[in-house]
Amino acid sequence: MATMRQWVLADRPTGRPLKEDDWALRAVPVPEPADGQFLVRLLWLGFDPAQKGWMENVADYVAPMALGDVMRGSGVGQVVRSRHPDFAEGALVAGQFGWQEFALSDGRDVDPVLPGVPPTAMLGVLGLTGLTAYCGLFKLGEPIAGDTVLVSGAAGATGSVVGQLARLAGCRVVGIAGGADKCAWLTGELGYDAAIDYKAGPIRPRLKALLPGGADVVYDNVGGAILNDMLAHIATGARVVICGGISRYQTGRMPAGPENYFNLVFRRATMRGFIVLDWAAEFPAIRRRLAGFIADGRLQYREDIQHGFENAPRTLMRLFEGANFGKQLLQLAEPA
Amino acid sequence: MATMRQWVLADRPTGRPLKEDDWALRAVPVPEPADGQFLVRLLWLGFDPAQKGWMENVADYVAPMALGDVMRGSGVGQVVRSRHPDFAEGALVAGQFGWQEFALSDGRDVDPVLPGVPPTAMLGVLGLTGLTAYCGLFKLGEPIAGDTVLVSGAAGATGSVVGQLARLAGCRVVGIAGGADKCAWLTGELGYDAAIDYKAGPIRPRLKALLPGGADVVYDNVGGAILNDMLAHIATGARVVICGGISRYQTGRMPAGPENYFNLVFRRATMRGFIVLDWAAEFPAIRRRLAGFIADGRLQYREDIQHGFENAPRTLMRLFEGANFGKQLLQLAEPA
Repeated sequence: MATMRQWVLADRPTGRPLKEDDWALRAVPVPEPADGQFLVRLLWLGFDPAQKGWMENVADYVAPMALGDVMRGSGVGQVVRSRHPDFAEGALVAGQFGWQEFALSDGRDVDPVLPGVPPTAMLGVLGLTGLTAYCGLFKLGEPIAGDTVLVSGAAGATGSVVGQLARLAGCRVVGIAGGADKCAWLTGELGYDAAIDYKAGPIRPRLKALLPGGADVVYDNVGGAILNDMLAHIATGARVVICGGISRYQTGRMPAGPENYFNLVFRRATMRGFIVLDWAAEFPAIRRRLAGFIADGRLQYREDIQHGFENAPRTLMRLFEGANFGKQLLQLAEPA
Repeated sequence: MATMRQWVLADRPTGRPLKEDDWALRAVPVPEPADGQFLVRLLWLGFDPAQKGWMENVADYVAPMALGDVMRGSGVGQVVRSRHPDFAEGALVAGQFGWQEFALSDGRDVDPVLPGVPPTAMLGVLGLTGLTAYCGLFKLGEPIAGDTVLVSGAAGATGSVVGQLARLAGCRVVGIAGGADKCAWLTGELGYDAAIDYKAGPIRPRLKALLPGGADVVYDNVGGAILNDMLAHIATGARVVICGGISRYQTGRMPAGPENYFNLVFRRATMRGFIVLDWAAEFPAIRRRLAGFIADGRLQYREDIQHGFENAPRTLMRLFEGANFGKQLLQLAEPA
C-alpha cells in the first residue's frame, strides 16, 4: 500500500514567530477516490502570510484549524486517478489541497489551470494573491486616473500586482520595499514611478519629497511603523486599504498601533479592511481579466521557488523574514 | 471712547496641555459699524475641543490662526448697532465672533437665533456640535434600525446628541462616559440602553457583555485606549466614525495608536474621519430638523455655564479636564 506525507498542525504560534515544530510530519496511506471524487498529486504549494493567522485562529475570521489538522494551504497538482466526470486524469488543477503529497477532492472550490499561462500563476497572480490585489485596489481604493497610489510591501506577491494594476488604471505609483534589488525591480521592470527602500533609512523625508500632495490611495500590506508613516502623507479624501500586516508577525508582540490615525479626520479619509472571499462570485471574471494582462505582457510577476516537501515549514517562515523575492512557492514534483 | 476686551493668541499649545498664558487679554476701542455692517454684543461663548487644534494649527486643516489673532470661537450675541438691512437692532444672532465682548460683522456666516428654542442651543445642539453629531452619525455611520451603536464621550455635547439621534433611528445605543452621574443621565434621561463608566474599571469585559454581536456603528470622540478597546468589539461590516480625540490633549504627548486597527480586516470594517463643514449646504435643513426634536422633547441637552469674560481661558481648559457636564458655555452678559 502506497504512503504519502502530510504536515499537520502541532502548535499555535499565537503572538510569537513561527518555529519548525509548529508542525509535525506524518505518513498516511494514499487514499482511493470514491465515486464523484478524484485524486490529485500535488506539484507546487503556494505560501501566504494569512496562513499564520489560520494557525493562530485569530478572531475566528475564517474556519478555525484544529491541532492535528493537515496544514491548510493552496496548491497546484495533477489529477492522477478520477471517478469524477469533470476532472480527467492528467488535468492540472488548483485548490486548497493542504500540505500533503496527494489530496482527494470532490471538485468543490477546485479551479482548472487556465490555458495560456504557467500553472504556478494560479497560486500567485491568478490565485487569492492576485484576486486580493485586484479587489482591494479597485473595490476599496477606487483609484481614478491621475491619482497617486502608495503601496507598502510593494515588491511582494500582492503589492507588485497592486502597483501594476494602478499603473494600468492611469495612476502614479510609489512603492515601499526592502532592499535596492526589489526597488530596482519596481521602477525598472514593473513601471512604478518611484520606490522607497525602507532598509536605507527613515522613509518620512522620502514620502514627503515624493508625495507633495499626499497619496490618494494607500494600499498597506505591512502595518506597524510603515503604516503610521504613510498615514502622515495622505491626501484629502484618501482611501487607505488595509490588506495585510506582515509586521504583526515579525516580533513576538503586536507592533504599536498607528498614532497618525487621526489624520483620517484632518484629511476626511477612509481606512478599510476587507476579506477577498466576499467577492468570490466575481473571481472567474477577474481571473480571466488578469490572465489577459499576463498573456499580453502588461502584468509581470516573480516567483521564488524552493524544493522538497520536507521544506514546507521553512518555506513559509521565509515570508516572515522577508527572504522571498516574488511569490513564495515550493515545488514537490514535476508534472507527468 | 468706549473700550472692550479681547483674548488674543499668545502661544501655541502644540503637543502639550493648555495653560492660561497661551492667551493675553487686550483692551481695544469698541468699533463702529460701517455701511453694511452691524455691531454685536456677545452674551455667551461656546467652547469646543477643536479650538485647541486651531491654536496648534495641526496639519493646516482649517485656516491657521496667527499669534496675536483674536481667539477664534463661536458665540451668541445681540445686535446693538446696525447699518445692515437684514440685521435689526435687538436681534439675537449666532456666529464665529471670537473671544471678545463686541464684534463687527457683515452678516456672512451669521445665523439668526431660531425661534422656539433657547438662544444658547445655537452654540451646542443647534451649532457645530449638534451638526457634527448629526452628520457623523448619519453620513458616515449609516445606522439602520436594529443596529447597535457604541458612543464614546457619550455624555459630552456631541456624544449625547449622537446617542439620542441613534435611538430616534431605531438603534440600540451603548455609551461610554466618565462617572456614575453621567452614566445615570445617559440611561435615565437620554434613553441610552446601557452606559459604561470608564472610571469604574476596565471597559473590555463590559463591552464584551453588552455587545455580544459587536457594534455596527462606533462613534468615537475620545481616541486612545478607549478607541482601541472599542475596535476589539466591532461587528462585521462596522462603520467606525472618528469624530474627536480628546485623549490626544490630556497629556503632553500623543496617546498610543489603536493596536486593534487590524480588526478592520477581520471584520471587513471601515474607519472614517470627516470635517463637518463639507456638509455646510445642508446645515439650515439639519438645524430645523434638530430644532423640531428639541421643541417636541425628543432631543435633550445639558449646559455647563460659567460666568465672566475674564474666565474664557479657564473655561476652555475645563473641557480637557473632563470637568464640564454638558455643553461648555461662558455667559458674558444678560440680553437687553
